Amino acid sequence: MKIVMLGFGAVGQGVARVFSTKRDKIKAKYGLNLNLVAVTDTSGAAVCQEGLDPDLLLETKIKKGKVSEYPEHGVPSVSGVDVMDDVDYDCLIEVTPTNIDDGEPAKTHILKAFNQKKDVVTSNKGPLALCFRELADSAESNGVQFKFEASVGGAMPILNFAHETLAGCDINSVLGILNGTTNYILSRMAKEGTSYEKILQESQELGIAETNPTQDVEGIDAACKVVILANSIMGMDVSYDDVEVRGISGITPESIALAKKDGYLIKLVGEISEDSLEVSPRLVCKGSPFAVDGTLNVATLKTDLADDVTVVGKGAGSVETASAILSDLISIWKSK
Amino acid sequence: MKIVMLGFGAVGQGVARVFSTKRDKIKAKYGLNLNLVAVTDTSGAAVCQEGLDPDLLLETKIKKGKVSEYPEHGVPSVSGVDVMDDVDYDCLIEVTPTNIDDGEPAKTHILKAFNQKKDVVTSNKGPLALCFRELADSAESNGVQFKFEASVGGAMPILNFAHETLAGCDINSVLGILNGTTNYILSRMAKEGTSYEKILQESQELGIAETNPTQDVEGIDAACKVVILANSIMGMDVSYDDVEVRGISGITPESIALAKKDGYLIKLVGEISEDSLEVSPRLVCKGSPFAVDGTLNVATLKTDLADDVTVVGKGAGSVETASAILSDLISIWKSK
Repeated sequence: MKIVMLGFGAVGQGVARVFSTKRDKIKAKYGLNLNLVAVTDTSGAAVCQEGLDPDLLLETKIKKGKVSEYPEHGVPSVSGVDVMDDVDYDCLIEVTPTNIDDGEPAKTHILKAFNQKKDVVTSNKGPLALCFRELADSAESNGVQFKFEASVGGAMPILNFAHETLAGCDINSVLGILNGTTNYILSRMAKEGTSYEKILQESQELGIAETNPTQDVEGIDAACKVVILANSIMGMDVSYDDVEVRGISGITPESIALAKKDGYLIKLVGEISEDSLEVSPRLVCKGSPFAVDGTLNVATLKTDLADDVTVVGKGAGSVETASAILSDLISIWKSK
Repeated sequence: MKIVMLGFGAVGQGVARVFSTKRDKIKAKYGLNLNLVAVTDTSGAAVCQEGLDPDLLLETKIKKGKVSEYPEHGVPSVSGVDVMDDVDYDCLIEVTPTNIDDGEPAKTHILKAFNQKKDVVTSNKGPLALCFRELADSAESNGVQFKFEASVGGAMPILNFAHETLAGCDINSVLGILNGTTNYILSRMAKEGTSYEKILQESQELGIAETNPTQDVEGIDAACKVVILANSIMGMDVSYDDVEVRGISGITPESIALAKKDGYLIKLVGEISEDSLEVSPRLVCKGSPFAVDGTLNVATLKTDLADDVTVVGKGAGSVETASAILSDLISIWKSK
């Protein structure tokens, strides 16, 4: 499988790391040859039709900061779109930074790949939250596959779980803790009885919350995932603006203590059902699968036959997210 | 798909119920025609090459107690083995009662189906815990499929999850609460501070624990599931005798209270790793995915790339278990 990867940040580097450690095993187990023929970042690209070395890609990026410095095969200043025109490939991995305003450049990349009759795997929430149906329709009409497990909850593989493992069930609704940063903050507030502001600051110092934490704490990241789950699992046709969103910045230690006294915890929960599309702080029972601490993500699928089924996993992490991309690649390969 | 189902107890009747409610949807969604051509119980069989009516099967069983009383197509005193010789079928659903001594009659049924080049779906822990490798090898050498999601944790679909959804990951170990009855008893002991004996008695009155609770409370049921997970997910070749088993009958309210004081709960946990194959009461952290109450089952897969991934679901229930059988049938159908 000849692969073009656009984007070489945390997720892209995770993919390179995973390719480096697992390539031989995947070849032996599935007969799938993971061959990276081009990788881009903002500096340009590394392109080699015979295959790039993932370790050398990582070394180049770490030492020189640019994939276009890749020995012999570096191409400065070339764009992702140009690379897609110039190389022979089977599958696009789109891992450029998420842009929640217009989904670009990922949207253009993905649609171009479909028109070139190529399969696409992405972790990019932007285009999925803004124009899901357009992308899904284009994939279908071009007869190619579109997989995006990594876009929701990193290593909590909820999409393929719903589609494959629960194939016999109808999914009536989904409830989830879809953002690790807010779960971390709320867990620590509940344990320590400390204020939101103080825990947020410490989370920023630890690198768990970003310097500008708005996307996480105001529920925007979780709302994007709600949109992806609604469209992908529940067959809806909704976008980011359809989600009612309330974040966690108004939660006080007093409200958490009050909930705790009655056996409850406060979590930022996303809900997808016929009647509701929202992200908001909610009470969850101690002893329920939602009472998980730390940066974990969790999603419960309410089904017609199997009742509630829940998946818990790490919501983020470079290699963890890359593992979801690898599973998508294997799934595409197995279906050929 | 022409289906023979051997056994018409709780699980078999759940399958009939699921076929009745979902047959049209499954046909429309996957093109799969679920056609029950024969169903047996201890009384004999109902056989109709054009297809039995699941509702009439259930009605006959409930009113007359015997599927062999099925109007026009009832066949008294015929055995499962004879039925398999006499009818034209594609797939066997084996749901006779679990027998942990020699795995019969399920073992004979399953091996016969393989030799007839038929796929098999089962919920039957007996043969899987006693002679897994023999069965898996026979399926492979006959070029047929062997699926048994329903044998571990009913509606907690851990096997297909590990094989399909986490295709890119190596699974290094599995930890699980694999028995709902013991989880229910321990959860109530922790909440109420009451003795094991009292809660067990109440659980029996509620129908959650059986009159003879040995299989559950002594860890035998969980140990069977440990064997199935070890062989299926970890590629081991072990059987029931290889598992170290300790149940929950020795747990006191005092030990639970002591654990609670330090932020822990006591759960009956099955562990599968290279070094350990055991079922025993263990301390688990509050706030971890293992701190689930009631009859829920949970299993955590420790992976090389995605770190810990956990699935939580109902461990039992007639329709819930049947949903796992249905997912297996769809998976077989999709791979054709």
